[in-house]
Amino acid sequence: MTHTSPGYSVTLRVGLDRGKRTATDLASAVAATGATVTALDVTESTPEGLVVDVTCDTADEDHAARIRESLVAAGGYDVRKVSDRTFLMHLGGKLSVEPKVELRTRDDLSRAYTPGVARVCLAIAANKDDARRLTVKRNTVAVVTDGTAVLGLGDIGPEAALPVMEGKAALFKQFANVDAWPVCLDTKDTEEIISIVKALAPVYGGVNLEDIAAPRCFEIERRLRDELDIPVFHDDQHGTAIVVLAALINALRVVEKKIEDVRIVISGVGAAGHAIIQLLSAQGASDIVAAGRSGAIHSGETYHDEHRQWIAENTNPRSLTGSLSEVLADADVFIGVSGPNILGEQDIAKMADGAIVFALANPDPEVPPAEAAKHAAVVATGRSDFPNQINNVLAFPGLFRGLLDASANQISTELLVAAARAIADSVTADELNASYIVPSVFDSHVAPAVAEAVRHTVEQQRS
Amino acid sequence: MTHTSPGYSVTLRVGLDRGKRTATDLASAVAATGATVTALDVTESTPEGLVVDVTCDTADEDHAARIRESLVAAGGYDVRKVSDRTFLMHLGGKLSVEPKVELRTRDDLSRAYTPGVARVCLAIAANKDDARRLTVKRNTVAVVTDGTAVLGLGDIGPEAALPVMEGKAALFKQFANVDAWPVCLDTKDTEEIISIVKALAPVYGGVNLEDIAAPRCFEIERRLRDELDIPVFHDDQHGTAIVVLAALINALRVVEKKIEDVRIVISGVGAAGHAIIQLLSAQGASDIVAAGRSGAIHSGETYHDEHRQWIAENTNPRSLTGSLSEVLADADVFIGVSGPNILGEQDIAKMADGAIVFALANPDPEVPPAEAAKHAAVVATGRSDFPNQINNVLAFPGLFRGLLDASANQISTELLVAAARAIADSVTADELNASYIVPSVFDSHVAPAVAEAVRHTVEQQRS
Repeated sequence: MTHTSPGYSVTLRVGLDRGKRTATDLASAVAATGATVTALDVTESTPEGLVVDVTCDTADEDHAARIRESLVAAGGYDVRKVSDRTFLMHLGGKLSVEPKVELRTRDDLSRAYTPGVARVCLAIAANKDDARRLTVKRNTVAVVTDGTAVLGLGDIGPEAALPVMEGKAALFKQFANVDAWPVCLDTKDTEEIISIVKALAPVYGGVNLEDIAAPRCFEIERRLRDELDIPVFHDDQHGTAIVVLAALINALRVVEKKIEDVRIVISGVGAAGHAIIQLLSAQGASDIVAAGRSGAIHSGETYHDEHRQWIAENTNPRSLTGSLSEVLADADVFIGVSGPNILGEQDIAKMADGAIVFALANPDPEVPPAEAAKHAAVVATGRSDFPNQINNVLAFPGLFRGLLDASANQISTELLVAAARAIADSVTADELNASYIVPSVFDSHVAPAVAEAVRHTVEQQRS
Repeated sequence: MTHTSPGYSVTLRVGLDRGKRTATDLASAVAATGATVTALDVTESTPEGLVVDVTCDTADEDHAARIRESLVAAGGYDVRKVSDRTFLMHLGGKLSVEPKVELRTRDDLSRAYTPGVARVCLAIAANKDDARRLTVKRNTVAVVTDGTAVLGLGDIGPEAALPVMEGKAALFKQFANVDAWPVCLDTKDTEEIISIVKALAPVYGGVNLEDIAAPRCFEIERRLRDELDIPVFHDDQHGTAIVVLAALINALRVVEKKIEDVRIVISGVGAAGHAIIQLLSAQGASDIVAAGRSGAIHSGETYHDEHRQWIAENTNPRSLTGSLSEVLADADVFIGVSGPNILGEQDIAKMADGAIVFALANPDPEVPPAEAAKHAAVVATGRSDFPNQINNVLAFPGLFRGLLDASANQISTELLVAAARAIADSVTADELNASYIVPSVFDSHVAPAVAEAVRHTVEQQRS
């Protein structure tokens, strides 16, 4: 069966010769090409025949053309138009800026604009903290990228990154009522990016760095955290780490093991891998081995890269050496944030009993989940078409909701752990099983629970 | 009679002793302090008495406290709460970012976000112009300030400027459906501002510079126009100039004079004065005299300031010297973009017959309009409480609507003139009179007419 995707949804407008073709014929003909029909609508009915919109998920870029050819070849079908739903929904972008105030009369203008607004300006000029109360700074997050590490596409630049940043902003609003705005920068220079974000900060209550390539993302986040009084968060690092920790907390509950007792192997030592190691350690993990492309990182070697050096000095207590496959033997937990198809069924089979496998490389995981599931007790991926989707959208909306509501100035590791625990605890004891270790992204309890945990932690840290 | 303003609107919640005070008593007592009662609402009715919200425009910051004291002294009134409507409407800011797409199901996410969005990113990576079609760049304007020249408040900084920029963005959406976003920069350095706006440009179809002090605003606008492929517009300069030209076109129709025949005197040689001179010249004005604080600018002197030097070289064909009052004698048109109360009735009396006076200093004009009206045929100000309000909101929304719809890359003087003519022509021959030379800001025909004129001009300039 062809693997179709809603990301490739198309709508074909087709005229049917009356007496020759029916709408059912059309649906069958489309499905016969391997497409998944999702909707059928008659848009016109005349003596000559019907005009029908058939919507379907297709397999790839070219499938729509194959459907058209197939219908033309079969005869009795007049393919008038083919629309790509993904592109259609992107026309003119996915965000709009709406006033929250009425502007219908002169009196409205006198309050929202001149002269009334001048008093609000003076109040803020007298006390800058009032900006968090009297302006959008109360609720805004800048979604900042330079377009150098976008999804799996790499360095595609700021214009091409914008649809992803718009999507991120839409998710912030949808899941936690945060007003997020895309900032796609036409520069890759670390110092310039730092100084631009500092200059933009007056409007925002927080900064979400996104899709900025390593190693520049580490320096940018570190410097901005030092130099700004609003929280700065690189979601590719810490968002992933939060949800991985949440999933691990629950997976360990399922297999009845403790984080301080388990052997963890991580594949991938970039932004996400680094942040995961830090967060798991903060939660009590004491036996983590990280493997890059050239095998396990250990203290017997010196690494020029400061992040690998840190990993060498802070992980791998038993000084294991060798390939990923070798160090995975007898491990309790595998977390992959690297590349596709680097492990096989036999590697999972060599892990300990009750193994936990998080194969998060996107779109193709480190090991096919169905194969991993033959040997592991709990399997998770980043994909929405398998159980246990590790999706950052479980973390960043509620996290920033809490940060904004608490007027937070910074982000601590304790805060990330609190967020992870809130996500894990959103899965009740009744719901928890090997195929349900993280809540659904559409579970509306998650973001408020994360926000509450974050607020609480910020307030505790203040007192 | 006390001059009250809706910009100082307050609501007092007052308990009335039953049998002692009525709601009418309350309204009278409030009005007796000089406030203008605008609403009365009974919010509670109990055996003990009523609770009434009385809303009124007051005269200044302290008036609400005087009302409270007056009611307390009178007795029978329990003032429970005093709310400032302007501050209330600013809580949390005046803008929100809303998704234009559904995000309720996994399929929605697959199209608006991963993996479907990746195809849109790749399309833009292959053809950067597609960003204007597939992202918010289609409809966005950055409202950029450094907070150094905000309203009449001067250099109050970026946080304090934000309520004004939010208001500007709200007006962009309300009047022309443009998505504008505030960019308040924490730097005053010209080079930094230029490079930051260039770095931000990928997200925007246009840039509106706002409340940036002269002379830096000239350099910033000039350099950004040179270095960006999206239009850049300093509203304080050119928006004012457009509406002044529109008003002048119609005022000249009223007094039946031609622009090439009239003597024009301008007071104020900052950003707005400079732009007005340029635009009026483009429309055919040939006898303009500009006066700064030290009197008329003329070619007999050399000015260190390059903008004054330009004015000296390009205006004042009769080489007039002397004070503003002196050069105003026998002039047909006075345009003030300077400061309050620099002219008196007698100065206007010395102007030509059928004089036109635009006294635009805010909040107090160069000459009290009622006095000017004793001698001039047409009087306009920037104030909403007199006829003929010269308000930039007549220009910038429709202007950017047209620029965005035409995918314009730049702004020409012809375009500004076209916009001015469209505003002037929005006042029909039947409507036109000395007290109605510009349309109301709430006339919904204006922005579309301006947008159409701008679109047409851009397209003409392309072919």
